[in-house]
Amino acid sequence: MSRFEINILGCGAAKPTLKHLPTSQVVNVRDKLFMVDCGENAQVSFCRARLNMNRLGHIFISHLHGDHCFGLFGLLSTMGLSGHTGEVVIHAHPDAEKLFRPLLDYFCRETPFEIRFNAISPSSAEAIYTDRSVTVRTIPLKHRVPTCGFLFEEAEGDRHLRGDMLDFYHVPTYCRTAIKQGEDYVAPDGTVVRNELLTLPPTPAVRYAYCSDTMYSERILPYIEGVDVLYHEATYGDDAEAMSRTTFHSTARQAARLARMASVGKLIIGHYSSRYRDENVLLAQAQEEFAHTQLAYEGMKVVLKP
Amino acid sequence: MSRFEINILGCGAAKPTLKHLPTSQVVNVRDKLFMVDCGENAQVSFCRARLNMNRLGHIFISHLHGDHCFGLFGLLSTMGLSGHTGEVVIHAHPDAEKLFRPLLDYFCRETPFEIRFNAISPSSAEAIYTDRSVTVRTIPLKHRVPTCGFLFEEAEGDRHLRGDMLDFYHVPTYCRTAIKQGEDYVAPDGTVVRNELLTLPPTPAVRYAYCSDTMYSERILPYIEGVDVLYHEATYGDDAEAMSRTTFHSTARQAARLARMASVGKLIIGHYSSRYRDENVLLAQAQEEFAHTQLAYEGMKVVLKP
Repeated sequence: MSRFEINILGCGAAKPTLKHLPTSQVVNVRDKLFMVDCGENAQVSFCRARLNMNRLGHIFISHLHGDHCFGLFGLLSTMGLSGHTGEVVIHAHPDAEKLFRPLLDYFCRETPFEIRFNAISPSSAEAIYTDRSVTVRTIPLKHRVPTCGFLFEEAEGDRHLRGDMLDFYHVPTYCRTAIKQGEDYVAPDGTVVRNELLTLPPTPAVRYAYCSDTMYSERILPYIEGVDVLYHEATYGDDAEAMSRTTFHSTARQAARLARMASVGKLIIGHYSSRYRDENVLLAQAQEEFAHTQLAYEGMKVVLKP
Repeated sequence: MSRFEINILGCGAAKPTLKHLPTSQVVNVRDKLFMVDCGENAQVSFCRARLNMNRLGHIFISHLHGDHCFGLFGLLSTMGLSGHTGEVVIHAHPDAEKLFRPLLDYFCRETPFEIRFNAISPSSAEAIYTDRSVTVRTIPLKHRVPTCGFLFEEAEGDRHLRGDMLDFYHVPTYCRTAIKQGEDYVAPDGTVVRNELLTLPPTPAVRYAYCSDTMYSERILPYIEGVDVLYHEATYGDDAEAMSRTTFHSTARQAARLARMASVGKLIIGHYSSRYRDENVLLAQAQEEFAHTQLAYEGMKVVLKP
């Protein structure tokens, strides 16, 4: 099972509207859930997306603006009421623990799990989480406060066994795990059957890059080069390019230009300013630069691997 | 204009559901808005109810459980983005300022209005706010943490002028404000026209009592006696009466019993546990005790004076 899905919980900008919630996403890698940003009401969208809170162990906060983290308190309280156990790690700027810990201590006293903070340095690109399925790296971004994006790199999966060849060589069941992982098979008579005869290559690993909030910056290109999916903020349209510079945000066209330069598979844009009633204006501008662009919406599921 | 309305923004219990938001209400007294509790996402429900943020100056927090205050950060941030000026006063337990101030200082740095905390003592019944239109008093409640309800007492309005009598006595326009406020009219020749001849009594003032969260307690009866509308929590039904005691909550039947004993005009119940899919169970049990009971719902507007 190699599921890799992105669930968009909120894709509005700082000022919530009746249409869009503040930023939050959940990346599902092989049924482990990773939350990226946690805007207000993320917990309700989480349930609406039919995601399982017990599978959520890591929350990555891009930067300490309220529309990216005010949902943490409610989410963590509800996880406590729901009997979540073990540990939840919040990967965020070092200020996060100082700010949030007193509130969590006060309001989530009876929480049956540990809340741990992992202080990350938004200005450096480094691996901040890794397990057998995925590595998460920071992508330094340019915003009004220290901000980073996140690159989710799936680990290469096992090779696929060829049932016909295993039967042909009478490979016993207990050897199969090792063969999936690339080992040759040594038959009882000492014959070596090369792994390539018994297996097919693993499904290619996928990569997902999340870049929000940020102004246009070509410095991110090395990190997002060739990713399968790029989520890039597109707060503004061409009409507000000047404003995008003063507020350290991007236009849809700029996001798409980066997607094209980085040869990504697909671009998802979001973080729409509340000034746009119909985001198709933003989509059209982006698609002039990069055709494979889609608009994010609350409840959207982007399936990289089913 | 003597408007007095209650807007229900959220009436769920601690664990939000896809149907109910955590607790928040807005009391509109003569177009001044008073928020009572501020659960997560209150700001969005506030906009959905077409209320004007610029008219919100006071927020009353019944107790420091997350489902009654986690919406404050987002609401205050958005009020800043919306150009709210002047002052917002948060009336809450003394711990509130210590807990919330560091976050507000960090996240709402550029807020163009003052945020002031008024420390209230939930265990005593006292007037904590008063202006020409309304007085707000605390009602001590019994919950797991220090908690109070709030009693909104409308100030008596002006007397109603009788146009026919003003014409008859040739009362000049500049005297009318004083007459509305109860003064007699002294004609140029020294004749005194008694106020009762010129006016009709003011529309009776209304009172609204909010009691959530609390276990059943007859001690609140003197405070809620005869109010026009009582909002009382009804977290549980008869099936969970034992649980209502251990969690310091009430059943719908208990809420209705208090409403009957206090001879209130109307009872609104809310703060439903997520265990009830259909709150009509709770309504039926309450109505066995007190017929004039209604279920709260998100978006409900209770009009005491139009």
